[in-house]
Amino acid sequence: MKKDTPYDIVVHNGTVLTVNAAFDILKSGIVCIADGTLKRVEERTADEPLPAARHVIDAQGGIIMPGLVNTHTHAAMTLFRGMADDLPLITWLNDYIFKAEAQWLNPESVYTGTLLSCAEMLLSGTTTFCDGYFFEDAVAHAVKESGMRAILAQGIVDFPAPGVADPKKNVAEAAQFIETWQGKNSLVTPGLFCHSPYTCSEETLKKARKVADEAHSLFQIHAAETQNEVKEINQKHGTSPVQYLDRIGVLNARTLLVHAIWVNEADFACMAKRGVGVSVATESEMKLASGVAPIPEFLKRGIAVGIGTDGAASNNNLDMFQEMDTAAKLHKVKRLDPTVLDARQVLALATKSGAEAIGLGEQIGSLEEGKKADLIIIDTHKPHLTPLYDPVSHLVYSASGSDVRDVIIEGRLVVRDRALLTINVEAVMEAVEHLARRIVI
Amino acid sequence: MKKDTPYDIVVHNGTVLTVNAAFDILKSGIVCIADGTLKRVEERTADEPLPAARHVIDAQGGIIMPGLVNTHTHAAMTLFRGMADDLPLITWLNDYIFKAEAQWLNPESVYTGTLLSCAEMLLSGTTTFCDGYFFEDAVAHAVKESGMRAILAQGIVDFPAPGVADPKKNVAEAAQFIETWQGKNSLVTPGLFCHSPYTCSEETLKKARKVADEAHSLFQIHAAETQNEVKEINQKHGTSPVQYLDRIGVLNARTLLVHAIWVNEADFACMAKRGVGVSVATESEMKLASGVAPIPEFLKRGIAVGIGTDGAASNNNLDMFQEMDTAAKLHKVKRLDPTVLDARQVLALATKSGAEAIGLGEQIGSLEEGKKADLIIIDTHKPHLTPLYDPVSHLVYSASGSDVRDVIIEGRLVVRDRALLTINVEAVMEAVEHLARRIVI
Repeated sequence: MKKDTPYDIVVHNGTVLTVNAAFDILKSGIVCIADGTLKRVEERTADEPLPAARHVIDAQGGIIMPGLVNTHTHAAMTLFRGMADDLPLITWLNDYIFKAEAQWLNPESVYTGTLLSCAEMLLSGTTTFCDGYFFEDAVAHAVKESGMRAILAQGIVDFPAPGVADPKKNVAEAAQFIETWQGKNSLVTPGLFCHSPYTCSEETLKKARKVADEAHSLFQIHAAETQNEVKEINQKHGTSPVQYLDRIGVLNARTLLVHAIWVNEADFACMAKRGVGVSVATESEMKLASGVAPIPEFLKRGIAVGIGTDGAASNNNLDMFQEMDTAAKLHKVKRLDPTVLDARQVLALATKSGAEAIGLGEQIGSLEEGKKADLIIIDTHKPHLTPLYDPVSHLVYSASGSDVRDVIIEGRLVVRDRALLTINVEAVMEAVEHLARRIVI
Repeated sequence: MKKDTPYDIVVHNGTVLTVNAAFDILKSGIVCIADGTLKRVEERTADEPLPAARHVIDAQGGIIMPGLVNTHTHAAMTLFRGMADDLPLITWLNDYIFKAEAQWLNPESVYTGTLLSCAEMLLSGTTTFCDGYFFEDAVAHAVKESGMRAILAQGIVDFPAPGVADPKKNVAEAAQFIETWQGKNSLVTPGLFCHSPYTCSEETLKKARKVADEAHSLFQIHAAETQNEVKEINQKHGTSPVQYLDRIGVLNARTLLVHAIWVNEADFACMAKRGVGVSVATESEMKLASGVAPIPEFLKRGIAVGIGTDGAASNNNLDMFQEMDTAAKLHKVKRLDPTVLDARQVLALATKSGAEAIGLGEQIGSLEEGKKADLIIIDTHKPHLTPLYDPVSHLVYSASGSDVRDVIIEGRLVVRDRALLTINVEAVMEAVEHLARRIVI
């Protein structure tokens, strides 16, 4: 870039949390963006004039940080938010969620539900998410429209599913989705999502793994989520879910294990050896009473861990700030040790480490020159964020999604002063409300 | 009230959550207020004209509900929000909190810190709180100015404390505070706050109990908060903290036990028999790694339980919506049972049951004719609250404090369209930031 070419965007007058390896915090930082990329991230000297830019954004003393990475959700499940809660898992799934999905999911409803979830995620500071659901082509269209970054995957199960009546075609349909979207859009990365080791046969899992490997795609799977699952897999395969998946060749560095709650020492060793990533969805796992995933143990073994919200039906929002707060606190009380999972570690989970877990660590997750320009600005001028001794503490323990003021993804401003620039939020909310009035529960 | 006298305020066009004994939900409700009191709370018939009122508030399809009751905080600790986190309890207390309190607390700083916390609480839907701290007279002046309802108590410990250099005078000073504020203001109710059974001697506790009984005031005390406390009390008094307090005559129906985490079967029986209330501060107890208070067991035994945020230094915000969400989820995962503490139970804890726990059950906590007009309006027209199948689910699992639009306390509008009408928030934030810059940590 020539010296006199103006930047596309310059952000200044805020504390920059780089979340780089040294966790550098720039007290009065400046971030310069061109071609969707971070060109300059550094402390600004007091007397330095602002570099030329097409767009200058004044953070007004707030916090400038990497966009949050939601490593696990089923975006369109916003359609079923709050439809049923506080029920035994099997009742909730069979009598509510599966029924509603069978009856109400179609390309249009999934598209609309995904747009709603993108609106909610953008307004609360999430710039990237990892999705697995049905009618994923509709999801991809919604995501493209929203301006978000995402890894998207068509769900694979060995029984008739919304949009895939014949389970024999499940892997082929998912492969088709990858083919359609591979390399088409810099923000949309297609992947594979096998639902679980108990709903996909060994044959299905192996076929899917082969497709993922050939396409260099991320292979996501729910695993070791409940005690029942562990029991079932043990009875059927004589080992734990993680070791079963390893035995059949499913685990490698392009694998994201979702939940990974009921894991043992041998599982840890296997996960570390294969270089898999893990996504923990603390609030959903608490609400569904699945258990507590051993995040500190994963970190001790160098396993890349990300934070996910899970679908809105089991959370019931997609606010990553609340996820950070709850994760930090849950592990402290579980171990009766207030030093476990400190604020910096948790912030890294929601940004850098999450990006690594889903295979995007080289592109996003921190504010470093050369990375994609995915960043958010937090308005700290609020009673619940006053006074400000430590910005990291505030982000994890005091802030919520509604404190996000601006959002930039790949150099494009998508939220400005809390207004979404890419989605007609009013129309989307109305469409979802209209649909929900027809969904009888 | 004559038929043609206009009401002071009429609120309409919203779903009214009464939180009365039947948990009535009025789909298109109307709430009429006069003389600070609820005069009419009912379903509005479609063709009925609005009654005459000086002020008509359109809830625009949102939720109209009782103001939240924060049963335990140390309001002025907003001054130390985020000053130190993730530390061993003793380090956090001795090296940071106690030091900062000794050096920086004075009537002016406590007044300013309390105003900040009132601003935060009001903007997030809390209308009543229960406080125990130092320089409580300054707290009372701030609360009076804010328009909030509160039970306030001067802290009692048997060592020199901010504002009470001579511990021999601790109970007398607290009694003086009660005398000064008793009956002076309909919103400010003075009470007693003994710090704990290990920082107050038997003599101090008995003297304080006597003062509270003579003034018909609430007696608050931290009890059974940590395993260490239980061990210490057992070594010293041969029994549990709860039973020790009972043996020396401290427990009766005007008692609020704060935390009550490490309690046994005999403690439950004793608490139920004496009719004490309990305040649980879930997020603070998680962050400090104290433990998990057995809320479901308290409820099973008919013990009145309220939810508190604790001080902002150990939370780090005063958002009661997040407290509800976390409490509901924590108990599910602790028991691995998703049916534990359902949304309605949790909403009751934060309103009606909390009011009962602090002795205000006859005045506030539900929207019923004859009760004080303390209510809030939630704006549900937001992506993260769409669609709306069940308002109670949304309040507990999806909403946060920033969704509160209006707040009315004793018939007075104190927050309108998210703007505080009683406190100059900008000036208060600036004053606290100014002070914080001098607090070296």
